[in-house]
Amino acid sequence: MSVLVVGTVAFDAIETPFGKTDKIVGGAATYICLSASFFTKKLNLVSVVGEDFPNEAIQMLKNKSVDTKGLQIKKGEKTFFWSGKYHNDMNTRDTLDTQLNVLENFDPMVPEQFQKSEFLMLGNLMPSVQKKVLDQMKRRPKLVVLDTMNFWMDLFMDDLKEALKEVDVLTINDEEARQLSGEYSLVKAAKIILKMGTKHLIIKKGEHGALLFNHNEVFFAPALPLEEVFDPTGAGDSFAGGFIGYLAKTNDISFENMKRAVINGSAMASFCVEKFGTQRLLEINKDDVDSRINEFVSLAQFDIPLK
Amino acid sequence: MSVLVVGTVAFDAIETPFGKTDKIVGGAATYICLSASFFTKKLNLVSVVGEDFPNEAIQMLKNKSVDTKGLQIKKGEKTFFWSGKYHNDMNTRDTLDTQLNVLENFDPMVPEQFQKSEFLMLGNLMPSVQKKVLDQMKRRPKLVVLDTMNFWMDLFMDDLKEALKEVDVLTINDEEARQLSGEYSLVKAAKIILKMGTKHLIIKKGEHGALLFNHNEVFFAPALPLEEVFDPTGAGDSFAGGFIGYLAKTNDISFENMKRAVINGSAMASFCVEKFGTQRLLEINKDDVDSRINEFVSLAQFDIPLK
Repeated sequence: MSVLVVGTVAFDAIETPFGKTDKIVGGAATYICLSASFFTKKLNLVSVVGEDFPNEAIQMLKNKSVDTKGLQIKKGEKTFFWSGKYHNDMNTRDTLDTQLNVLENFDPMVPEQFQKSEFLMLGNLMPSVQKKVLDQMKRRPKLVVLDTMNFWMDLFMDDLKEALKEVDVLTINDEEARQLSGEYSLVKAAKIILKMGTKHLIIKKGEHGALLFNHNEVFFAPALPLEEVFDPTGAGDSFAGGFIGYLAKTNDISFENMKRAVINGSAMASFCVEKFGTQRLLEINKDDVDSRINEFVSLAQFDIPLK
Repeated sequence: MSVLVVGTVAFDAIETPFGKTDKIVGGAATYICLSASFFTKKLNLVSVVGEDFPNEAIQMLKNKSVDTKGLQIKKGEKTFFWSGKYHNDMNTRDTLDTQLNVLENFDPMVPEQFQKSEFLMLGNLMPSVQKKVLDQMKRRPKLVVLDTMNFWMDLFMDDLKEALKEVDVLTINDEEARQLSGEYSLVKAAKIILKMGTKHLIIKKGEHGALLFNHNEVFFAPALPLEEVFDPTGAGDSFAGGFIGYLAKTNDISFENMKRAVINGSAMASFCVEKFGTQRLLEINKDDVDSRINEFVSLAQFDIPLK
């Protein structure tokens, strides 16, 4: 099944306790596409860059079977840039610089050939932009996944809540779940968020794994215990890419299959954090992914039959 | 199989955001025994109380098939007392008062009938006291589990490391694993701790679950997502009781069975935190435990076969 991915394609400059990078290619949609490309070859990208964005990076996406027809290249403008520094615990970071550039007036255009994509991944972007993409779809996708962050909750909570009404799966982290719901307990938070319209909620807890909720069930996926987390940038997007990529590949959106998708997403995130930026996602192959999935099976599986 | 449990039998006064208690019966060995009693009826207790300790509490332990022959009752002395206050996040607490009383000169005596117990649970106590119990065993137990805490690491690290050489399973929390190993990464910490002599390590992460390590394998058990954690006191001990109780019941100390034991321990801990002190453990029955185990199976299981 085809996946339409909307999100940023950007430059990042990252500093972690292990080192720092110059401007490197990043952005939510980049990580989502790279990660999803291990599962499906029908990836349609809608995004925007400036004319400073390197052709080789676009070619890199094309090599991963990403259709870049929907990637606007703005003459005379500059690509979105984010710079951040992670603290020693790797769970918190400071934003050092944000230059919106082409994002400031981003008007997403979904090419006609993309408007019937079966799966829609709305990567982290202004909620009204996410909504605009949804509105351009010729038919309701089989599954709509929306990722967002605290920044949009601070500024555009109403827009976000409006968008949530049309979403199948919302992915946020634990702090964002607390902010969105006003509840500290994640179980209570999930109940409140599921009343906002989204049919499923994934709460990403970083090194502590991820929770998948629907109205009746809950599933927990561990994160792989790693010796070092080198750079967390893009981990959440790699998770989302693996999640929707797996669902598109298997064309099954049952809760049981979403559990498997969460494990696949967790596996992709576990690769992402092993090196700076997209480096690790560009090195690995399908065999690496398969053996990582096996590690998750060994890590989490036990044989107690239901009584 | 019989389980020898050594640890405190005590009075606690607890304050959480949900309320506070007067002096109630607590102590590591109390929680361990109550929890283990759901799995085995051969529980041998070695501990000490003062003459202020209520007979009904001893009777309560006996009713749970705990043999209290090794419980010393010190005339003219007072029972160990601990008072603490939990912060809003329930993950951190302040100790308000500690009165060692009978613990100050506790010289554990293992009755002869207990000296061949097959399983030994060394609950949180001064490491030299734990060692004294181990030394009184007529034959090496099939499995020795030791629980400890940061307090003993601060004061008696050498004694603790000496005891660890004879231990099969060490249970500590994440911060304690970092302190004991000097490593922030739990994977690195586990490698270092396993070189200290213990054959297995369980790192308890509270609401984030538990990790079980041996030299080659790692298993992760989630914590049950709860609407409220009412009182975390005794959760770690309830975990330990469920863990060793299940192993004693099944008489199988393979890594595969330890995984099941960790799930059973997690289930017992999930009950413990639902009410103040031992209250919830005293209310539930075996059917409640079985259905809680089913919840863990639903929560954590997915069907991706190994490739």
